[in-house]
Amino acid sequence: MADPRFFTNVGPFRLDRLAEIAEAEIAVGGGEAADPGQQIVDVAPLDTAQAGDISFLDNRRYVKSFEASRAGACVIHPDLAARAPKGMALLVTPQPYKAYAHIAGAFYPEPKRESGIHPTALVDPTAKLGDGVSIGPYVVIGPQVELGDAVCLHAQVVVEAGVSVGAGTEVMQGATLSHCSVGRNCLIHAGARIGNRGFGFALDPNGYVDVPQLGCVRIGNGVEIGANATIDRGAGPDTVVGDGCKIDNLVQLGHNVRLGRGCVLVAQSGVAGSSKLDDFVMIAAQGGVGGHLTLHAKAQLAAKSGLMHDIPPGETYGGLPAMPLKDFFRLVTLWKRQLKNMEKK
Amino acid sequence: MADPRFFTNVGPFRLDRLAEIAEAEIAVGGGEAADPGQQIVDVAPLDTAQAGDISFLDNRRYVKSFEASRAGACVIHPDLAARAPKGMALLVTPQPYKAYAHIAGAFYPEPKRESGIHPTALVDPTAKLGDGVSIGPYVVIGPQVELGDAVCLHAQVVVEAGVSVGAGTEVMQGATLSHCSVGRNCLIHAGARIGNRGFGFALDPNGYVDVPQLGCVRIGNGVEIGANATIDRGAGPDTVVGDGCKIDNLVQLGHNVRLGRGCVLVAQSGVAGSSKLDDFVMIAAQGGVGGHLTLHAKAQLAAKSGLMHDIPPGETYGGLPAMPLKDFFRLVTLWKRQLKNMEKK
Amino acid sequence: MADPRFFTNVGPFRLDRLAEIAEAEIAVGGGEAADPGQQIVDVAPLDTAQAGDISFLDNRRYVKSFEASRAGACVIHPDLAARAPKGMALLVTPQPYKAYAHIAGAFYPEPKRESGIHPTALVDPTAKLGDGVSIGPYVVIGPQVELGDAVCLHAQVVVEAGVSVGAGTEVMQGATLSHCSVGRNCLIHAGARIGNRGFGFALDPNGYVDVPQLGCVRIGNGVEIGANATIDRGAGPDTVVGDGCKIDNLVQLGHNVRLGRGCVLVAQSGVAGSSKLDDFVMIAAQGGVGGHLTLHAKAQLAAKSGLMHDIPPGETYGGLPAMPLKDFFRLVTLWKRQLKNMEKK
Repeated sequence: MADPRFFTNVGPFRLDRLAEIAEAEIAVGGGEAADPGQQIVDVAPLDTAQAGDISFLDNRRYVKSFEASRAGACVIHPDLAARAPKGMALLVTPQPYKAYAHIAGAFYPEPKRESGIHPTALVDPTAKLGDGVSIGPYVVIGPQVELGDAVCLHAQVVVEAGVSVGAGTEVMQGATLSHCSVGRNCLIHAGARIGNRGFGFALDPNGYVDVPQLGCVRIGNGVEIGANATIDRGAGPDTVVGDGCKIDNLVQLGHNVRLGRGCVLVAQSGVAGSSKLDDFVMIAAQGGVGGHLTLHAKAQLAAKSGLMHDIPPGETYGGLPAMPLKDFFRLVTLWKRQLKNMEKK
Repeated sequence: MADPRFFTNVGPFRLDRLAEIAEAEIAVGGGEAADPGQQIVDVAPLDTAQAGDISFLDNRRYVKSFEASRAGACVIHPDLAARAPKGMALLVTPQPYKAYAHIAGAFYPEPKRESGIHPTALVDPTAKLGDGVSIGPYVVIGPQVELGDAVCLHAQVVVEAGVSVGAGTEVMQGATLSHCSVGRNCLIHAGARIGNRGFGFALDPNGYVDVPQLGCVRIGNGVEIGANATIDRGAGPDTVVGDGCKIDNLVQLGHNVRLGRGCVLVAQSGVAGSSKLDDFVMIAAQGGVGGHLTLHAKAQLAAKSGLMHDIPPGETYGGLPAMPLKDFFRLVTLWKRQLKNMEKK
Repeated sequence: MADPRFFTNVGPFRLDRLAEIAEAEIAVGGGEAADPGQQIVDVAPLDTAQAGDISFLDNRRYVKSFEASRAGACVIHPDLAARAPKGMALLVTPQPYKAYAHIAGAFYPEPKRESGIHPTALVDPTAKLGDGVSIGPYVVIGPQVELGDAVCLHAQVVVEAGVSVGAGTEVMQGATLSHCSVGRNCLIHAGARIGNRGFGFALDPNGYVDVPQLGCVRIGNGVEIGANATIDRGAGPDTVVGDGCKIDNLVQLGHNVRLGRGCVLVAQSGVAGSSKLDDFVMIAAQGGVGGHLTLHAKAQLAAKSGLMHDIPPGETYGGLPAMPLKDFFRLVTLWKRQLKNMEKK
């Protein structure tokens, strides 16, 4: 059960209500008759779930945990339903992880944020605030800022002059927004730094000459930006993050980077200046994309890989330097064979 | 000498007192008679130490600096004592680095923190504060927070609702704690972000569906967490950091990661979701551990390596992808040979 | 045009005035007569520039954009001037990027910061503040701090006891300075953490023994330090950053690291303890330098590379582990050949 210090369970729910929420079919392990009125009191992982709990299986790595689970119910893919313990209620769906997300959200809805402006928040008189905004302690809001309805800024967020934030967006503790516009329903995590001067300078015998960074950061709707991530503003063009992008902790985006819709950048990855990621590109953890490259739609870069060239649509690259991932895996196979041959000699 | 603007030297100490503190034997370079009453006024590095100073040698890379040092005394391993300059007082111990730590701590004890709550700190009336806590300016403490005795929160720390912090723990400037319990005598550095929503979402034709992240972060006793490090809360299970773990700057721990006791994660390394590090596992700088893996007790991952498989107990892996380190070094040797062969052709 | 919410254009300028600022020669594409009085109203990228705008070409990757550009004027290298569209005014210089930097700075000068101390800033009475300092909201300044003339501390910056900051230095939101001296005219970005306890501890059967970190961080003049970067203080010697260094976002410097003048460390790179980078060393993005190494003057490390050995002056290393870059590229060529041979079999 989720720790009641942090989460509030609004259950129980009947099994048939959860099936509705999950858009899943009811079944029972071992083929018995299902009880649509079965009471489910909580969500829980497979290995700790009890008779009143509902769990889920999404990763085949955990099939054994599923087979041994004491969960009263489980969200499961049709292909694996036959492996359920006898008597376990099943919610069968081709998308068990998504279905679980909806069920967990039903048990633990996001707490309603109280609207209001904390008395210690400093709001410039020229800032325009929408209805129902929630502004935490020690927040600083500069001139000409525009906040949409129900925007929530947690403690110590700083929003610099001219920034606009769309309705429903939540900004966690200590994040900084400058030189940017942020869309609706975004989630920006603690300590994220958006709109910093890009890293641009020209060589000179007397040292480096800073190149003015005259672009902004434009962030679409429904974007998530991780804790302590950094997104620099453009040098002239803007840095752009498309609708629905998911950016994890400690990710770096250089100036002029353009992300299409739904890109996923996992923790500690980085994209160098002026590179372009088309829709639904994925960069796995600690991946690095060189400057001035294009990753075409649905391209993927494997974890820790270093990319020096464009990736064609839908292809996956990996390695250092990154190459088509199947080539990299063949190369690794070759290395293993060479190592074996060395042993023989 | 340590800069008096930042550090206060409470010396001098007699040599025999330092030997006691260091649990070391007194000797003298060149075999002369030691003077247990020799006054030592400060600690200093080998190359800048003077007659009144004590230094230490721990890394064989610096033996020449040792041989040329003017330090009045030096903490040294028995194997290297014979290489001391003539007349240099020696504190001989098999663990010179640890012995030096104790000596340096004697000269420069941690400054006593004044207890008290800064008038600008915002403490929710339902928070429970132990004796002798020290709460800095602009700190924000939410409802139901529990702080043990002598907890020290520096300027602008935010502690969100329900968090507990054990006695003696110190949290540096601007760090954020949410959805977590922190043990005793921990040190959490500036800008660390603990308890963020994990990076969990399911695919959907209309975009990603966020999966509620219903776990916490449980941090043991004596843990150090580096500046701007990020530790996400669990998705269902908790994210766990065992007693005595040392986590460096800019490290990322994904949701559900479990660290045993005494793990060391060096700067900019990362561990993906649901991986498990048993006791005393070490990840060197910029190392990356994939998701759902197990690193068994005392396993090590070399710097910059990318791990895709479990590591057996006590073994060291390295490379991209990581393999047993000795295999990786053999592979590197092979590459060098192949390069040489290319030259010949 | 730069977004007027964030940037103020003080143009227009005559072409001959811009030539003077840029130290460039006036010419015209297609060899027509130049009009030194031509009015230029703004700077813009090649692909969006209009008749009133001046653009620049620095990267040959964008020659086609240059040839197709509608910009009224362009800063250009002599070698490429002949490819200008007919009638485009040219400012010809061997250093177009630097020339553009000066022109862009003329159109968009840094806004003059208003001096003054925000009423919510907490300034210890023993701190010494120069003339014309600008101290933002919720800034915290400890005892014995010294700020030079025109120092600017943005919202929520924390400057701990004893720190000195040179004239003209600007520190962005939420950055933390402790145990350090910072030179003149530096720019420290949001969330940077300077002077943290170094990551130093000795092994012990009862856990790790922290080694007191008794050095500081000494930062020269004209240094830039990126958002959420972390620089630990020395263990005994100081951590040193030389004049004119450019450090990007999320970079980590371990204790005792010494950077010479003009070093460039690109985003997410890291340098382990006690390594020394001589003047004008460059570490590309996500590069990692092991501990106790020396990178001699003008050495370079390629992106994502992991360095285990010193680099001789002026050489470029790359790969994992890093080797002379031309060897690494030869190795990559060899791998590709081996992959091809595998296919044939």
